[in-house]
Amino acid sequence: MSILVVGSVAYDTVETPFGRAERVLGGSASFFSVAASFFAPVSLVGVVGRDFGEKQLAAFRGRGIDLEGLEQVDGDTFHWQGKYSYDLNARETVRTDLNVFEFFKPRIPERYRRSEYVFLGNIDPVLQRDVLDQVERPRLVACDTMNFWISGQPAELKKTLERVDILLINDAEARQLSGEWNIVKAARAIRSIGPKTLIVKKGEHGVLMFSEDGSFAAPAYVLEDVFDPTGAGDTFAGGFVGYLAGALGAGERTLDTALRRAVIMGSTLASFCVEAFSLDRLLRLTRAEIDDRYRLFKRLTFFEEL
Amino acid sequence: MSILVVGSVAYDTVETPFGRAERVLGGSASFFSVAASFFAPVSLVGVVGRDFGEKQLAAFRGRGIDLEGLEQVDGDTFHWQGKYSYDLNARETVRTDLNVFEFFKPRIPERYRRSEYVFLGNIDPVLQRDVLDQVERPRLVACDTMNFWISGQPAELKKTLERVDILLINDAEARQLSGEWNIVKAARAIRSIGPKTLIVKKGEHGVLMFSEDGSFAAPAYVLEDVFDPTGAGDTFAGGFVGYLAGALGAGERTLDTALRRAVIMGSTLASFCVEAFSLDRLLRLTRAEIDDRYRLFKRLTFFEEL
Repeated sequence: MSILVVGSVAYDTVETPFGRAERVLGGSASFFSVAASFFAPVSLVGVVGRDFGEKQLAAFRGRGIDLEGLEQVDGDTFHWQGKYSYDLNARETVRTDLNVFEFFKPRIPERYRRSEYVFLGNIDPVLQRDVLDQVERPRLVACDTMNFWISGQPAELKKTLERVDILLINDAEARQLSGEWNIVKAARAIRSIGPKTLIVKKGEHGVLMFSEDGSFAAPAYVLEDVFDPTGAGDTFAGGFVGYLAGALGAGERTLDTALRRAVIMGSTLASFCVEAFSLDRLLRLTRAEIDDRYRLFKRLTFFEEL
Repeated sequence: MSILVVGSVAYDTVETPFGRAERVLGGSASFFSVAASFFAPVSLVGVVGRDFGEKQLAAFRGRGIDLEGLEQVDGDTFHWQGKYSYDLNARETVRTDLNVFEFFKPRIPERYRRSEYVFLGNIDPVLQRDVLDQVERPRLVACDTMNFWISGQPAELKKTLERVDILLINDAEARQLSGEWNIVKAARAIRSIGPKTLIVKKGEHGVLMFSEDGSFAAPAYVLEDVFDPTGAGDTFAGGFVGYLAGALGAGERTLDTALRRAVIMGSTLASFCVEAFSLDRLLRLTRAEIDDRYRLFKRLTFFEEL
């Protein structure tokens, strides 16, 4: 039930109304890996520069994440700088330095090629397919993308999506990709391209899932203190794919049951992520805390039959 | 378990990307009354002009709504004109003619004064208190308001809220009323003024409830065809208060259970409202259809414990 994740490992500089963090660990594959590591073994494929620190590597190792696929090359690590106002659903990118990530070409180590679960982080859809060409028949492929590829590489993206089981994107991306405003119509159009399951992330408004078993809607966990939303979507994806890999690996046979629980688990992990800068909260999280919050999630959303 | 509702009865002219309706039945008290009438007897207090038609009155009567409190006076009925783009969460008011509603002073008929449940629609908070002065110890008072009163009459509104059990407003109004961006903090501030229960309506993103028993979060029902969102919030309120009155009247003793079910029932009714212009869908709705959709709501949101 091992998970292969390919995506960005970065330094983030983030400003929110509650504080500022300078050059802290970030990147989609970082948040994903740490979240997923609570449920299944994770192998990370990415690239960092010479400025990437031993402390950051130790954080991944502390979560048991396999780093053979994390290349370190000459140059600086990808750096993203962003700023949030009180409306934490909207953010402004102040600066993006791709650095070594600009020339990232994922190479999958031999040992990773039999990974049963694959998560293709938000990179060029041609590279995403390139990853799939290097692995042997994974049981499940999940994928993220963004507006940049939807508008810039639509044909390549569609070719990738034909080989994807689960697509995880936000509501604006779902509308852009499908050309449909209504989210049910958007989901039908996107699922007809390939992904049997579509997860639509709506930030503080929760998640919608469209699958062969119908629709599932979950609110976000209600939090009094949201400190920094950076990485919440990637953390959701990590909790979601991680839980799914663990459950299916442990013999759960009802896919719909596992998918619904995975959405709640992803949302649970994301709710911890936003409580602190960077991966700070995730790195001191315990499985007991996760399970407690899952139970509170049940309590938050429960209502009786008629 | 009878419900007294005070609010606007109006003609609406509405344009959506899917069509246009000219001078059709609208107004907060209209949507509320028809939705609530599926669960409990409703008495309506409002004002209309000489142009208000027999057909409209017949629609209310067909739902068993008591119209003794609906005054008909010289002049024209309140007329609202609005326009929606594809983003149905945002609307533009093209024109508001208050007409006879400008001088509305609610007079509660003798027969209504022992109503156990009172819903104060969105009118001047001084008039809302005036209504409460005319009724004898209702079991439960629910209330709506809007940005106009929050900014224009904050002191009067607070005096009204001291006498309210349940406040139903949208997320922007909750933030404005409390001065807090975070919705949990906003809820705490608002509940400290008086209402033990706060319902925050988020349109297509669902509903949050904060009460003495904690928080409850419900997504909106996921619909493929949203035709006209006008009245959805008032219909939610009608389904919510109506179900609550019916359940408590029938002896339901667990308030939290009734409140949570009432949120889902309000959301269910609202999901029908938006399927057609005006009250068209609500007026041909059956209790069996409502209960079916409630069950689908359960299916939409259900996930297993760990």
